[in-house]
Amino acid sequence: MACGEFSLIARYFDRVRSSRLDVETGIGDDCALLNIPEKQTLAISTDTLVSGIHFLPDIDPADLACKALAVNLSDLAAMGADPAWLTLALTLPSVDEAWLAAFSDSLFEQLSYYNMQLIGGDTTRGPLSMTLGIHGFVPQGRALKRSGAKPGDWIYVTGTPGDSAAGLAILQHRLTVDDAEDARYLQKRHLRPTPRILTGQALRNLATSAIDLSDGLISDLGHILTASRCGARIDLDALPFSAAMQRHVAPEQALRWALSGGEDYELCFTVPELNRGALEVAIGNLNMPYTCIGQISADVEGMHFQREGKAVMLDWKGYDHFAQ
Amino acid sequence: MACGEFSLIARYFDRVRSSRLDVETGIGDDCALLNIPEKQTLAISTDTLVSGIHFLPDIDPADLACKALAVNLSDLAAMGADPAWLTLALTLPSVDEAWLAAFSDSLFEQLSYYNMQLIGGDTTRGPLSMTLGIHGFVPQGRALKRSGAKPGDWIYVTGTPGDSAAGLAILQHRLTVDDAEDARYLQKRHLRPTPRILTGQALRNLATSAIDLSDGLISDLGHILTASRCGARIDLDALPFSAAMQRHVAPEQALRWALSGGEDYELCFTVPELNRGALEVAIGNLNMPYTCIGQISADVEGMHFQREGKAVMLDWKGYDHFAQ
Repeated sequence: MACGEFSLIARYFDRVRSSRLDVETGIGDDCALLNIPEKQTLAISTDTLVSGIHFLPDIDPADLACKALAVNLSDLAAMGADPAWLTLALTLPSVDEAWLAAFSDSLFEQLSYYNMQLIGGDTTRGPLSMTLGIHGFVPQGRALKRSGAKPGDWIYVTGTPGDSAAGLAILQHRLTVDDAEDARYLQKRHLRPTPRILTGQALRNLATSAIDLSDGLISDLGHILTASRCGARIDLDALPFSAAMQRHVAPEQALRWALSGGEDYELCFTVPELNRGALEVAIGNLNMPYTCIGQISADVEGMHFQREGKAVMLDWKGYDHFAQ
Repeated sequence: MACGEFSLIARYFDRVRSSRLDVETGIGDDCALLNIPEKQTLAISTDTLVSGIHFLPDIDPADLACKALAVNLSDLAAMGADPAWLTLALTLPSVDEAWLAAFSDSLFEQLSYYNMQLIGGDTTRGPLSMTLGIHGFVPQGRALKRSGAKPGDWIYVTGTPGDSAAGLAILQHRLTVDDAEDARYLQKRHLRPTPRILTGQALRNLATSAIDLSDGLISDLGHILTASRCGARIDLDALPFSAAMQRHVAPEQALRWALSGGEDYELCFTVPELNRGALEVAIGNLNMPYTCIGQISADVEGMHFQREGKAVMLDWKGYDHFAQ
């Protein structure tokens, strides 16, 4: 059934379940009008998801909404920011009302959970893709940047990187996991990653740098090293693996997925020796596993991997859309 | 030639020609970090342009950059806002370096002209499309909304609506204009529309409502009428046409393009009788043609058209991507 673009937008996306006090005008004018709290810095990130590249074409629209939002929330988490507003530019090949209902229900459920408001967007006809713009706040001067890591800082990751790549392999029938619960767990890490918002906020006073794992640890930690102009030693034996991964995936493949699988949306961050105690207190309350996997170093360039105390050469790269 | 996504972004888009003081961190971290001036409200708009729908697939990339930015700037103009920052999510089928160089050169030239800064974005592989997020400021309480029109207010448009549709018709070989200068003028109105930023700012204290003409006067003025809960009388004889349009297009076709052609990115706004003198002073300096085309009315619903003082029925609609 075809219906007009404007009524389409109105019906599915112009519902204000949360009405934030800082939103003066939301959807329905040429621009949204927004007021920023005093002494807060605005944090903005933009991500595009294209069908067949960033998600499987037959993905459940409810999962897609979760994933699209999580990808963007994860960028806020990596800065230590509080989520506030979302813009959604949605390109659809046709008007599929069941799809739109499932997608928008799921999106608004997530927005409500994070106390966010959809403030605008655009709906156009074309191959399925979407661009989300996410806006949040961080107290002035306390954002977690990539550039603050110092030699001697310890390197941490949250959660168990690699699970998302394993989940994708199951969805694409490249991996068979005969335990239904483990299979579900791994697929869920791919389809509904958890943005580490509270962890990012807790790290504001403790971490010297942070990034979220979208392209894999090698690629993303590499950005911290480049921005901070230092190297790192990584202890491969310390890398945390989920029980599901350990049960169903050979160690070498698990390592590859953990280092270069991408789409985990865990945080990687650096903490000076002096803050390690405070880190345990601050993150301990969040029931969020986190693991020290190495140390920033001034005497090496790039990333150096060790296993059982000995240097190991790896040449895996992070995911890169345009690389051949 | 293929090259990595990150080096691609870095090479073409990570150039800071303008470095605004309100940008704490621009491109190169998980989020941009931005500081809002005191007593200013943030205005945000998002627009997507898809190849084959919003622009011709063979469009000159320099024109495309101008047009994409103008479409978004026009939304700020319609709120009376000052442009500040841009995010660009660009989806490309492949890495065409000549295309990227021409597109980005043109984009940065425009950004520099408007004292704007590119603060982030995303580059993905897929069918050519782009989503721009534009951010600007407007003094608190002074934004031009769609909802403020009152019965008795006069309705104005800037420029000569319809030119863009005529220009598109030339580009698509549906209209032949044998005068090269006139043809160039009309095509330029389509390819490089002028966002009416200064006019929008001048209207902050004078207009009761404003909108930009993206879908055609009938559709866009219709949004003002809906939001303001009133009707309007439009004098078709008053509609302004460019000399090029008058010379090469039959009056009935010109009227159709002016009312429902779309993509003019002129402003339509309402001004109370009391402010008409001040309007002439404020806009007179801008060397910007503007024309009174009718009046807001409480005693009619929707839009009523008149020609030589007599009512005329029109059923043309604005452009709508999903309408059949």
